[in-house]
Amino acid sequence: MSVQTSLNIPALMNIATRLRIDSVRSTTEAGSGHPSTCCSAAEIVAALFFAEMRYDAGDPQNPDNDRFVLSKGHAAPILYAAWAEAGYLKRDDLLKLRRFESDLEGHPMPRLPFVDVGTGSLGQGLCAGVGIALNARRIGSDYRTYVLLGDGESAEGSVWEAADVAAFHKLDSLCGITDVNALGQSGPTHLQHDTDALAGRWRAFGWNALAVDGHDLSAIHGALEKARQTRGRPTMILAKTLKGKGVSVMEGKGGWHGKPLKKGEELDKALAELQSQMVPEDAPAQRPDAPKSARRPAAKTGTIGASAYKRGDSVATREAYGAAIARLAATDDRIVALDADVKNSTFSEKFEQQHPHRFYQNFIAEQAMIGAAMGLASRGAIPFPSTFAAFLTRAYDFIRMAAISNLNVKMAGSHAGVSIGEDGPSQMALEDLAMMRAEPNITVLYPCDAVSTEKLIERMAYHPGPAYMRTSRPKTPVIYGPEDDFTVGGLKVLRESKEDAATVVGGGITVFEALKAYDQLKAQGVSIRVIDLYSLQPIDAATLMRCARETRGRVITVEDHYPGGGIGDAVASAIASEGFTVQRLAVAEVPRSGTPDELVDHYGISARHIVAAVRRV
Amino acid sequence: MSVQTSLNIPALMNIATRLRIDSVRSTTEAGSGHPSTCCSAAEIVAALFFAEMRYDAGDPQNPDNDRFVLSKGHAAPILYAAWAEAGYLKRDDLLKLRRFESDLEGHPMPRLPFVDVGTGSLGQGLCAGVGIALNARRIGSDYRTYVLLGDGESAEGSVWEAADVAAFHKLDSLCGITDVNALGQSGPTHLQHDTDALAGRWRAFGWNALAVDGHDLSAIHGALEKARQTRGRPTMILAKTLKGKGVSVMEGKGGWHGKPLKKGEELDKALAELQSQMVPEDAPAQRPDAPKSARRPAAKTGTIGASAYKRGDSVATREAYGAAIARLAATDDRIVALDADVKNSTFSEKFEQQHPHRFYQNFIAEQAMIGAAMGLASRGAIPFPSTFAAFLTRAYDFIRMAAISNLNVKMAGSHAGVSIGEDGPSQMALEDLAMMRAEPNITVLYPCDAVSTEKLIERMAYHPGPAYMRTSRPKTPVIYGPEDDFTVGGLKVLRESKEDAATVVGGGITVFEALKAYDQLKAQGVSIRVIDLYSLQPIDAATLMRCARETRGRVITVEDHYPGGGIGDAVASAIASEGFTVQRLAVAEVPRSGTPDELVDHYGISARHIVAAVRRV
Repeated sequence: MSVQTSLNIPALMNIATRLRIDSVRSTTEAGSGHPSTCCSAAEIVAALFFAEMRYDAGDPQNPDNDRFVLSKGHAAPILYAAWAEAGYLKRDDLLKLRRFESDLEGHPMPRLPFVDVGTGSLGQGLCAGVGIALNARRIGSDYRTYVLLGDGESAEGSVWEAADVAAFHKLDSLCGITDVNALGQSGPTHLQHDTDALAGRWRAFGWNALAVDGHDLSAIHGALEKARQTRGRPTMILAKTLKGKGVSVMEGKGGWHGKPLKKGEELDKALAELQSQMVPEDAPAQRPDAPKSARRPAAKTGTIGASAYKRGDSVATREAYGAAIARLAATDDRIVALDADVKNSTFSEKFEQQHPHRFYQNFIAEQAMIGAAMGLASRGAIPFPSTFAAFLTRAYDFIRMAAISNLNVKMAGSHAGVSIGEDGPSQMALEDLAMMRAEPNITVLYPCDAVSTEKLIERMAYHPGPAYMRTSRPKTPVIYGPEDDFTVGGLKVLRESKEDAATVVGGGITVFEALKAYDQLKAQGVSIRVIDLYSLQPIDAATLMRCARETRGRVITVEDHYPGGGIGDAVASAIASEGFTVQRLAVAEVPRSGTPDELVDHYGISARHIVAAVRRV
Repeated sequence: MSVQTSLNIPALMNIATRLRIDSVRSTTEAGSGHPSTCCSAAEIVAALFFAEMRYDAGDPQNPDNDRFVLSKGHAAPILYAAWAEAGYLKRDDLLKLRRFESDLEGHPMPRLPFVDVGTGSLGQGLCAGVGIALNARRIGSDYRTYVLLGDGESAEGSVWEAADVAAFHKLDSLCGITDVNALGQSGPTHLQHDTDALAGRWRAFGWNALAVDGHDLSAIHGALEKARQTRGRPTMILAKTLKGKGVSVMEGKGGWHGKPLKKGEELDKALAELQSQMVPEDAPAQRPDAPKSARRPAAKTGTIGASAYKRGDSVATREAYGAAIARLAATDDRIVALDADVKNSTFSEKFEQQHPHRFYQNFIAEQAMIGAAMGLASRGAIPFPSTFAAFLTRAYDFIRMAAISNLNVKMAGSHAGVSIGEDGPSQMALEDLAMMRAEPNITVLYPCDAVSTEKLIERMAYHPGPAYMRTSRPKTPVIYGPEDDFTVGGLKVLRESKEDAATVVGGGITVFEALKAYDQLKAQGVSIRVIDLYSLQPIDAATLMRCARETRGRVITVEDHYPGGGIGDAVASAIASEGFTVQRLAVAEVPRSGTPDELVDHYGISARHIVAAVRRV
């Protein structure tokens, strides 16, 4: 609804009441869900959807639509009710809430076209909102991004990471609204109804902050208008509300979190109360204004081009990563990169140097970085967020939600394993493969040299869904050439003969330990098969099984990773169906500082240990 | 050093210079490390260790010592230098920094008795500091807790989670000092030297905030004194400093993060510069004041007592969890509990009701919760932090560091798997077992009934090191009795005969699916072995191998978890050495909302699927 028209308050009041009625009815019908948190937000949602946002209600994915992220995802019923009110959903379908056959799940999921990112893990929506707002700049759209948060979730640190980053990027197209209903799940929130204290926090983080009565439609509308007119910084509206507003049995009362009304008298009384809140309308409710649509060239798939490396070069895969994303981005403007203040270690600085306007700094805030990548991906960008692999654990809940939402987030983690050396265990990723592989739809890649890195970056960018690439700190020799092809789900058999005594499967730096072991054993008259398992998920089970068969079931895995969930488990799981098992060499304890060579040897993953393992089998 | 004595500024200046010299020399000798970030903090560390903190330098673990947490863990060399200056370490040993044989690792690790929690993943120290300060209340000590942060790491959301929680708990014994050197790893920090803006953030979060010149010893000392006199809220000192202070080649300059000086001319010039900064001392440096030591009763190991349940009761393991920690705490006052606003779902509210003073609310801030638990554990408490298992992913980096530090943090995660039903995937933990098992020293327990839950709580509390218990949402029948014993690393064979056609291994709710499958197959004349794998890590490999042998290698695992890293991988890894493989039933895709029964069946982990799998093998 445009700014110019006068506000039709009675119509909006009735919309808010209908949103409440729908939320109460659908949760009672489902027998579970969150009516109380919907009721506190009814005026906010009514004002946003029917007096503020510009969007095509028949085309929720229109690239110029204003975006709405329901960070307090448990209020899903009111989101569905709003889209029914807007005409996109059928009102009757709201009663299928939370059923297996319905897409109206307990928390919003992006299989619904009006949901950009799955929510329900609190504190993530504003991070995604930052990415969605950055995307508007990328595509040159003037769409605005609205995020509805709960006051309870504002305790999540990720919210303040997003606050800092949004202020740094001066994202004035981003507007948050906090539904300050003062009640968390298990008790009152820390600051309860002190919207001034909350506003003070946002101002201290560089935001425009406005405290309003969250049940006063004209106050909400006025704040949204001020937000729209504010330049150079995002706005947070702190809306004081009552949880369960409009339904006397739960209004402002504890003990009503996640609890539907009982069918029968309890529901009937609530519905009657809500019905009685309907007011006469002077004029019919206005429909949302359409977005200002712009024509844009169709997206073109990019290419990495000819390899930058030749066999025998010595290049760290992390460095090849940075160069590769920069080159790919030169041919596809959907490619963007995000950093958390380690761009000179991950080499994403190469991207920044060439594409500064598509490079987003998040400072040391990994959750904000992955969350922004989720938002960017949801709007058509192909984001490459990267940091030390160890610090991606910081964002695991975001990664989990990116997997649930199946977003095109292309993560990279550098400094994997004990081979980083002296910095010690806090900087070593030894569980990142396990963490990523645990999510069934995350592609997991682990190149050992620069050529495979650059080629896999191209594959990773255009393979649908979330993906992770593990890179290493030390320089490694380039062993592949322009003729080598790499695929998601592939592997390379590097040494093979009919006499192979065992199959040794490595990844990253252990590929070179396996090759050293090959040479040592060869000198002793023993040949082994050596596999570079550059794709852990999906995995080439057929070739692994063939190799297992051809080496009489003698399969040894070696990895710069803890034993659980890494290469050993991936291979074991892939070849189990033919009855093959795996002998694993992995880092079996928490390591300490030392030189890379010292640690690789001490923790049992060097060529010497591979030779011994082959001798044993 | 007590407040009363006048400050010996020249002696402190020389201490600061010596700390710089040691930091510069040790990092050059190591060939890696962070001299520049040590140099910015030299006056802060000198003032803390030699004019503020009360501690017994010969007994770093004295329970009444003031505590110091180096949140900016990459400044480890200056921490070691301070303990050498205090006389605890030998100065010569500083030159062994980062060597494999030395405990002076690249980042501080708690095998050093003056390190409470391992740091090096930024943004964690203040969370631990909250726990350490809460512990002072628990044991009735007046020790104070000091945390040294970097300005760069203040972008981490976890810092603001800690800020919120510390203010809520009115932790006036907690004092943070932010070394605002304005330079991150890869560039300037967001707010650079704007200590007023930083102070504004801390004030907005309810802290006493003081901005000072971080190279002015008397200003730092004055701020520490004000902090000590402030009641009812914690203090943050924002100390404006120069990175590399005192060494002209790097002072205030970019490009010097994590870079030692070169041996030879570069080092020699720096040392000469630093030596020239030594000043005449009027009087010898004072030694730290001793702590006020209190006598306390020796800790007693508690017991859960007689079981609260009888066979046939129907109780959710999450509910048994809450009851068990409350009962154990009644007999051991080291037991404390922490919540993140879900106490009515995890049932930790039972603990709060009985032991309100040992129950710490963190609101929706999982990182702060685990971080505080780390701090509490480091000072002798036995903390049980709990939330939905899905949301422990939020704190994975903290869990990783708790594992590296081998702290007694006893985590519990409820609402595991698709059996939670309608709330949908955002609330379902399907990767928690993988996440926890990936850390080699985390004990992982997964009881299926109330009796095993309560008995395992007792085991978990007193088993050294970090541990995780997975609990379920639905009620399950009590199948164990008072005679049943449960051990870390054990399992229960629930059905066993000589004719067993296959071994079925379940955990949690799938144990009951396996028992149903047993009944159905029995009716068809087929007997199977059924195992309750309540301890995944460590795991009873011997019994699993015996069962695999006795059922001709036919082993089926069934779990309410994704395939990677859970029960299937744990069992496969345990029995691989005898050549046995596993057939896995697990949730192989991202699930959606539905009823628990519907989902358990749809995703292939119900009795029906177990029967079919047995029929196949």
